[in-house]
Amino acid sequence: MTTGSQEHTRPVRVGPVTLGGGHFAVIAGPCAIESTEQLQATVQAVRAAGAVMARGGIFKLRTDPASFQGLEERGLAELARAELDLPLVSEVTDPRYLEAMDPLVAMYQVGSRNMYNYALLKELGRTRKPILLKRGFAARIDEWLLAADYLHRGGNEAVVLCERGIRTFEEATRNTLDLGAVAYLKEHYPYPVVVDPSHGTGKRELVTTMALAAAAAGADGLLVEVHPRPDQALSDGRQSLDPAAFAALMGRLRRVLAALDRTLHELP
Amino acid sequence: MTTGSQEHTRPVRVGPVTLGGGHFAVIAGPCAIESTEQLQATVQAVRAAGAVMARGGIFKLRTDPASFQGLEERGLAELARAELDLPLVSEVTDPRYLEAMDPLVAMYQVGSRNMYNYALLKELGRTRKPILLKRGFAARIDEWLLAADYLHRGGNEAVVLCERGIRTFEEATRNTLDLGAVAYLKEHYPYPVVVDPSHGTGKRELVTTMALAAAAAGADGLLVEVHPRPDQALSDGRQSLDPAAFAALMGRLRRVLAALDRTLHELP
Amino acid sequence: MTTGSQEHTRPVRVGPVTLGGGHFAVIAGPCAIESTEQLQATVQAVRAAGAVMARGGIFKLRTDPASFQGLEERGLAELARAELDLPLVSEVTDPRYLEAMDPLVAMYQVGSRNMYNYALLKELGRTRKPILLKRGFAARIDEWLLAADYLHRGGNEAVVLCERGIRTFEEATRNTLDLGAVAYLKEHYPYPVVVDPSHGTGKRELVTTMALAAAAAGADGLLVEVHPRPDQALSDGRQSLDPAAFAALMGRLRRVLAALDRTLHELP
Amino acid sequence: MTTGSQEHTRPVRVGPVTLGGGHFAVIAGPCAIESTEQLQATVQAVRAAGAVMARGGIFKLRTDPASFQGLEERGLAELARAELDLPLVSEVTDPRYLEAMDPLVAMYQVGSRNMYNYALLKELGRTRKPILLKRGFAARIDEWLLAADYLHRGGNEAVVLCERGIRTFEEATRNTLDLGAVAYLKEHYPYPVVVDPSHGTGKRELVTTMALAAAAAGADGLLVEVHPRPDQALSDGRQSLDPAAFAALMGRLRRVLAALDRTLHELP
Repeated sequence: MTTGSQEHTRPVRVGPVTLGGGHFAVIAGPCAIESTEQLQATVQAVRAAGAVMARGGIFKLRTDPASFQGLEERGLAELARAELDLPLVSEVTDPRYLEAMDPLVAMYQVGSRNMYNYALLKELGRTRKPILLKRGFAARIDEWLLAADYLHRGGNEAVVLCERGIRTFEEATRNTLDLGAVAYLKEHYPYPVVVDPSHGTGKRELVTTMALAAAAAGADGLLVEVHPRPDQALSDGRQSLDPAAFAALMGRLRRVLAALDRTLHELP
Repeated sequence: MTTGSQEHTRPVRVGPVTLGGGHFAVIAGPCAIESTEQLQATVQAVRAAGAVMARGGIFKLRTDPASFQGLEERGLAELARAELDLPLVSEVTDPRYLEAMDPLVAMYQVGSRNMYNYALLKELGRTRKPILLKRGFAARIDEWLLAADYLHRGGNEAVVLCERGIRTFEEATRNTLDLGAVAYLKEHYPYPVVVDPSHGTGKRELVTTMALAAAAAGADGLLVEVHPRPDQALSDGRQSLDPAAFAALMGRLRRVLAALDRTLHELP
Repeated sequence: MTTGSQEHTRPVRVGPVTLGGGHFAVIAGPCAIESTEQLQATVQAVRAAGAVMARGGIFKLRTDPASFQGLEERGLAELARAELDLPLVSEVTDPRYLEAMDPLVAMYQVGSRNMYNYALLKELGRTRKPILLKRGFAARIDEWLLAADYLHRGGNEAVVLCERGIRTFEEATRNTLDLGAVAYLKEHYPYPVVVDPSHGTGKRELVTTMALAAAAAGADGLLVEVHPRPDQALSDGRQSLDPAAFAALMGRLRRVLAALDRTLHELP
Repeated sequence: MTTGSQEHTRPVRVGPVTLGGGHFAVIAGPCAIESTEQLQATVQAVRAAGAVMARGGIFKLRTDPASFQGLEERGLAELARAELDLPLVSEVTDPRYLEAMDPLVAMYQVGSRNMYNYALLKELGRTRKPILLKRGFAARIDEWLLAADYLHRGGNEAVVLCERGIRTFEEATRNTLDLGAVAYLKEHYPYPVVVDPSHGTGKRELVTTMALAAAAAGADGLLVEVHPRPDQALSDGRQSLDPAAFAALMGRLRRVLAALDRTLHELP
């Protein structure tokens, strides 16, 4: 028996990648796409270290309207120019952008603040593209599963859950990463579950440790923020790894996975 | 001096009604519009008891996709047929419905689950219709104020905040109604603040008491669910008052307001 | 019918005072006893304004061991010298102090951090002195009621509950004062319930407003921190009223109570 | 570098055992001591599987006064008769029991509900026995560290922290095990930290997974509930492992520790 219940998981295919297929899959990349060059360089680096998918935000939901909101329309153009050899997951924040994003994105992410945006979920249920459904930061597990039901009811069964930390009274970490929820989901539900240790801690120095803990808790993969120069990142630099730290994480992860009788999902 | 700081509040006009204008304004009506008849009868009853605005949902955000979601498009038609002599506030859940709702609705409500839906907020910022911005059930006050900033930045300054209870570890009540937040907002910010004791408690028998407490805490008004036959309501019946209980609430409210040197906003 | 269900409340006598006897009782005084003079002056002032009981801590539970912990043994001596014409409620933090406190204190307070200290509760259950049982700041209502059961099982039925705010994700106020819990308890349980708006908000400027809200929510009384010179208080000065502000509070409270068909408990 | 910062940890000795000494130490045993035989059999089994310390409650803090409270005085007698070849940690709930417990117990546990019981902490600060300080289930990390300061100020520096889950809005698990707090503490503070996956999940089927995750998060050890027949346990049976499941946990733990360049603390 492996950790958790990977054998009952319903795999989700994203191009050449399978999430929840037994192997452990790592998705990595910048919080936000800042330029074609930044994106390409980061994706190249994370692929070299063993990631199988890229992440990168075009539209950022920021609490403060004065903060950087992503490149938005310009980001779509930068992305169209980029040559990536990993499938990309990117957040969709508005149903009206689906058409423009469709050719550029292999998987749509529903962000934590949109988990209850049922108008958006219904629309995504009508697409046939896989969905990375982040847990609302104050969502109970049953509500999260009901959000996945919105997608299913529309006919889209390609749903991957992403635990990214919940809001509690604790403030030493940005969020409280709920790995017990991961263990619980893997015990009882067929969804692939990935963990975001970047948002889950908000602190770069805790990301690697919590990534390993997520693997031990039975997750099917990770979503990790990596930036070529975290201190110059336009958003979330405080929780981003640089490529060297990410490569070190991957090395330690391989060993922990082996001790759990699991292996890393790798692309040829 | 009156309770709170009504004198520094920036009033918001909704047709013949002024929210935050010193007088205490009561908005009441069904959780969801179920038919033209139900809506008209309820609005007539709450107007007779002293309400100055009506509420009624066309599009309902429900956690469970199998629950009643409002009449949706048919609701727009029912509403178009209704003759209401109170301005109506109704929740908008998707920017694409704004055009259809525009002629029917005097004020848009942003529901608790959409407070972080910045795509929606930006769109509403471009309209010139007043907005009732409910607090996200896990939103800190500073995040709620930043959501209001999204509306302002678009040019819409007609924002009324609505406290409707937050999510805590307590389960005896559906939510924890945070009247301290109301007192705090009235002390420091110029927004009109109304309180929703129906969602804030989830229990009919606590609604009146908490409505009076909200007035004492300095609120500028209330948002109350009233249904002709709460036990047959398609949603939220457990927390809806019938017209007689609502009229009793209004009688008690008038007396408490007088003791606070305030008066009820009344239409001729 | 009055607000809440005062008619089903089981009154608790504390000397000449009755808590939960229909009348609304105000307990006031300093957070901590700093000297005989400070205590006497404060008690005189709050009595003149209409309080029927005094509060004052001898042993303070402070999160930081470097903070002022109360006068402790010396406080007992200061208290023994004081001539108070109001019964005093004071917190007991250790069963071993009961004997020394017994002749000086009319009611024992169990503080929020000790609500789960069952060794202490069992000991207090064996006394016949009334108990003011504060809610643990993270206690659900059912746990709070079970803490009261610990007292009952020992034979002590003179229990008054005190809502003082719970810990949530909100930080604008020190705690989230849960007046919905007060309304709920008054609807379903026979305990007198008093509200502490000082700890419940942590901010002097919100105390009066929330005191009025507590009355409207159906509470049987208040516990208010008053200090002759709040800015010089050794603890909790930020949330203490001075005697003039307290007198103003009492004036406004009388009017709100009258509007609720209730009256202030007054001593001759 | 090993996971976390074991190299900066100040080790705590408990008889032949060292907590925080680089090796990973497992403490296991029943929630409550039910008889000499139950305790002896359990301790023998957990020692055989690789535990280096035993746990077992004499005095249980139970929310409901009608629940089993531990054997109390009789438990002391049962314990005196038991021959254990592991040092025992047991919870102290009342300073007055210290004298009777002293010869029987190698380490005192402060339970989650007593973390704020400063009278008890001060008393324990005067002893020279090591203390296992559980996190209050609603305590922020800074408050937990201040509780440790209470022990230090009395002169007792032998403090081990125990993360056992915090109270949040999530109810699928009994508590939310905060492994991010463990990673944070190991990064910044010199205390040994052990993790209690039994209380942290409340569900037997999640204990092993979360035990492995705790090791990956950098903990110095575990506190695990083991009962010969969990279904007949007088308390917490739902979250107790039987000896076979515990032995399986230990086997998997050894492999994960090796992958982290760490080893299990073992007694000869």
